[in-house]
Amino acid sequence: MTPDPNHLGEGAEVLCIGSELLLGNILNSNARWLAEALAALGIPHFRQTVVGDNSQRLQEAVREASRRCRLLVTTGGLGPTTDDLTTQAVADCFGQPLELREDVLATVMARYKARGQSIPASNRKQALLPKGATVIPNPTGTAPGMIWEPRPGFVILTFPGVPTELHAMWRQTAVPWLQERSYGRGVVLSRILRFWGASESRLAEAAAAELAQTNPTVAPYAGTGEVKLRITACAETSQGAEALIAPTQARLMKLGGSNCYGCDEDSLASVVLNLLTERQQTVATAESCTGGGIAAALTAVPGSSVVVLGGIVAYANAVKHRLLGVSTADLERHGAVSEPVAKAMAAGARHRLGADWGVAVTGIAGPGGGSISKPVGLVVLAVSSGQGTVAVTGRFGASRGRHWIQAVSVGASLDLLRRQLLGLGLENTWG
Amino acid sequence: MTPDPNHLGEGAEVLCIGSELLLGNILNSNARWLAEALAALGIPHFRQTVVGDNSQRLQEAVREASRRCRLLVTTGGLGPTTDDLTTQAVADCFGQPLELREDVLATVMARYKARGQSIPASNRKQALLPKGATVIPNPTGTAPGMIWEPRPGFVILTFPGVPTELHAMWRQTAVPWLQERSYGRGVVLSRILRFWGASESRLAEAAAAELAQTNPTVAPYAGTGEVKLRITACAETSQGAEALIAPTQARLMKLGGSNCYGCDEDSLASVVLNLLTERQQTVATAESCTGGGIAAALTAVPGSSVVVLGGIVAYANAVKHRLLGVSTADLERHGAVSEPVAKAMAAGARHRLGADWGVAVTGIAGPGGGSISKPVGLVVLAVSSGQGTVAVTGRFGASRGRHWIQAVSVGASLDLLRRQLLGLGLENTWG
Repeated sequence: MTPDPNHLGEGAEVLCIGSELLLGNILNSNARWLAEALAALGIPHFRQTVVGDNSQRLQEAVREASRRCRLLVTTGGLGPTTDDLTTQAVADCFGQPLELREDVLATVMARYKARGQSIPASNRKQALLPKGATVIPNPTGTAPGMIWEPRPGFVILTFPGVPTELHAMWRQTAVPWLQERSYGRGVVLSRILRFWGASESRLAEAAAAELAQTNPTVAPYAGTGEVKLRITACAETSQGAEALIAPTQARLMKLGGSNCYGCDEDSLASVVLNLLTERQQTVATAESCTGGGIAAALTAVPGSSVVVLGGIVAYANAVKHRLLGVSTADLERHGAVSEPVAKAMAAGARHRLGADWGVAVTGIAGPGGGSISKPVGLVVLAVSSGQGTVAVTGRFGASRGRHWIQAVSVGASLDLLRRQLLGLGLENTWG
Repeated sequence: MTPDPNHLGEGAEVLCIGSELLLGNILNSNARWLAEALAALGIPHFRQTVVGDNSQRLQEAVREASRRCRLLVTTGGLGPTTDDLTTQAVADCFGQPLELREDVLATVMARYKARGQSIPASNRKQALLPKGATVIPNPTGTAPGMIWEPRPGFVILTFPGVPTELHAMWRQTAVPWLQERSYGRGVVLSRILRFWGASESRLAEAAAAELAQTNPTVAPYAGTGEVKLRITACAETSQGAEALIAPTQARLMKLGGSNCYGCDEDSLASVVLNLLTERQQTVATAESCTGGGIAAALTAVPGSSVVVLGGIVAYANAVKHRLLGVSTADLERHGAVSEPVAKAMAAGARHRLGADWGVAVTGIAGPGGGSISKPVGLVVLAVSSGQGTVAVTGRFGASRGRHWIQAVSVGASLDLLRRQLLGLGLENTWG
């Protein structure tokens, strides 16, 4: 039977322990990492919980999880200090005493020595485990974890909160242990399709049939200007999951038309750079309201130096004139935020830097500088090449703020460049 | 009694709803943001839970929370699509039907119209609320939230999962609502002190006495190049908390010397912009390996157009020569990543754009392009003004990757500019 990603039966839960998470001092990157790691093993995962360094609340969370799931993965609270109380609390939950494991103590002490650290008086604590627990060795730190089945059908895996230690221990010990015992029900595979120029609700309406599917499932997400559709399939093997994803992916890509710009790790910048690299062409930027954001997005991609020659951030009108050759007549007649100026900026960047393509943005990012005829959020994008220069005007609105307007303007300008590189029209197919 | 930040009594829980979190597709930044927001209001917060877009599991989580806490804050599942099921599930939990709220519907429809989007057939869904619920207006998106007390002493606040919408709605509606009803037990106030040029471990060693304090507590965090010390105090009133923070803050700032560049919402960019604005001076940038990141960081700050004239992204050597006037002799003799070239870039930006200050970066961000004499992570920064031009060489190492090298180079160049504006030496006081 092929499992349904929404109903995988009883599965795993993740419990992250640490007051720093509840105070908001750090992002819970371990929860995300474990979510991906469980999905990769095909282990269904239905809940994540965070509690602080408090034995009673930690025990409550463990007891509740033991009634819901087969596998509980914990992070945090395995160190030598007094606020590290995971092992003791978990053992208390099931009325098991801890016993000192000499082999573990020897390893912990060796680890402190190898690091040239003095052995803390509390180090014995890290060698205490409930009877019957299997050690998860920690190849990169002092805190070992454990695999423990306190009652039949419920297994707890404990890991330290340090991400690099968690990752190494998971790969080295947990993955083979879980695979040998067939915890995974096949494989869960996801594909992210990325769209620019489509609203989440419009895309969801068009893809209503796919959104109603059960395997693969399809779910929409809105980003900053971008919309994503995530296709998730469950199957016995990765090939099987791929085979389930492929037809849905093909339908959604057809539905999205030219708005679908890539998938998974693609970004508009990486897609544009690939198109330029294939053609052995170069690009230069001319930016006003994005202030260098387009150039920064392009040069964030490794290898971009092959096609990105550089750019000009022309915040002041004098700089638009002096460095990009925008005529003072155009600046005075049409204003800095206008199609003639955007076109002159794109063409100017191309000529001044000797590039095949020029991409330009001028607009009003706010919060100040808007007027009735030219409100905050008004942005003009232009792309220039040997075939000519085109411009489009976007109205991104003031309500979502300066940062959003700048980020969407960067995306929209890269999307315009992508469309011109592909010989597509200026208009998004979604209107 | 002064509350202890570690034991604040019965309080709030956070419930984040979204299968994308359980699949590990995104980091749960909302949980962290809400944790900080609750702490800022002095509202104790003991548990965070994540469930997927599944009505049954969502209802279980809500019911469990209703037995443990006074205040449940949810994120996600308020959109118009079929997998957005938070409002219905929460109402079902307490056996309450939903009713259509015409005022909410009108607002939702107006929002779609203002964005020039067609109104999806499913938009009515976003105007359905349980009877007695108060709307949390969404100033920046279409999904409103609600404040609902399904039974005495237990209140649910729902928010969309889009961070900007959550933030705006929290600040505009939730904060005053919670403050009026005295949900906080006293006040938990935090101050973040920001340092550049100090390692986390060196700073922690120097501040050992402060790190051992209990009220206020002091905790160190390492960012990208930056180190932060967070001072957190609990008191009956904000004045009381301020009074607890002040002496510790003064000691830590003295300890940090010129490495302490600001606090709370300050960034190196905002600090530099303030210094330039005070002096009525202007700045221009010349960037190679940061590819526009310095200009983007500066222009991300509202009001930056007063002092930022623009800049040149000179990725290719030909652009360094043509647009910045770097001599081909210097480029050939010293290479693009050298102090003479960085200085010429900074001076070139200043002259070509007619600015009072020029700031430049040239370096090897990798992963390719390194050599034995000029490894990946080698970055040269320069600042030029009427008083002359200075350069410093940074070795940021290859191990943390391109993105990190670019981000640290942006920070280091802004810090160099800050030091020059303040008339400080080139060296960090921490060596």
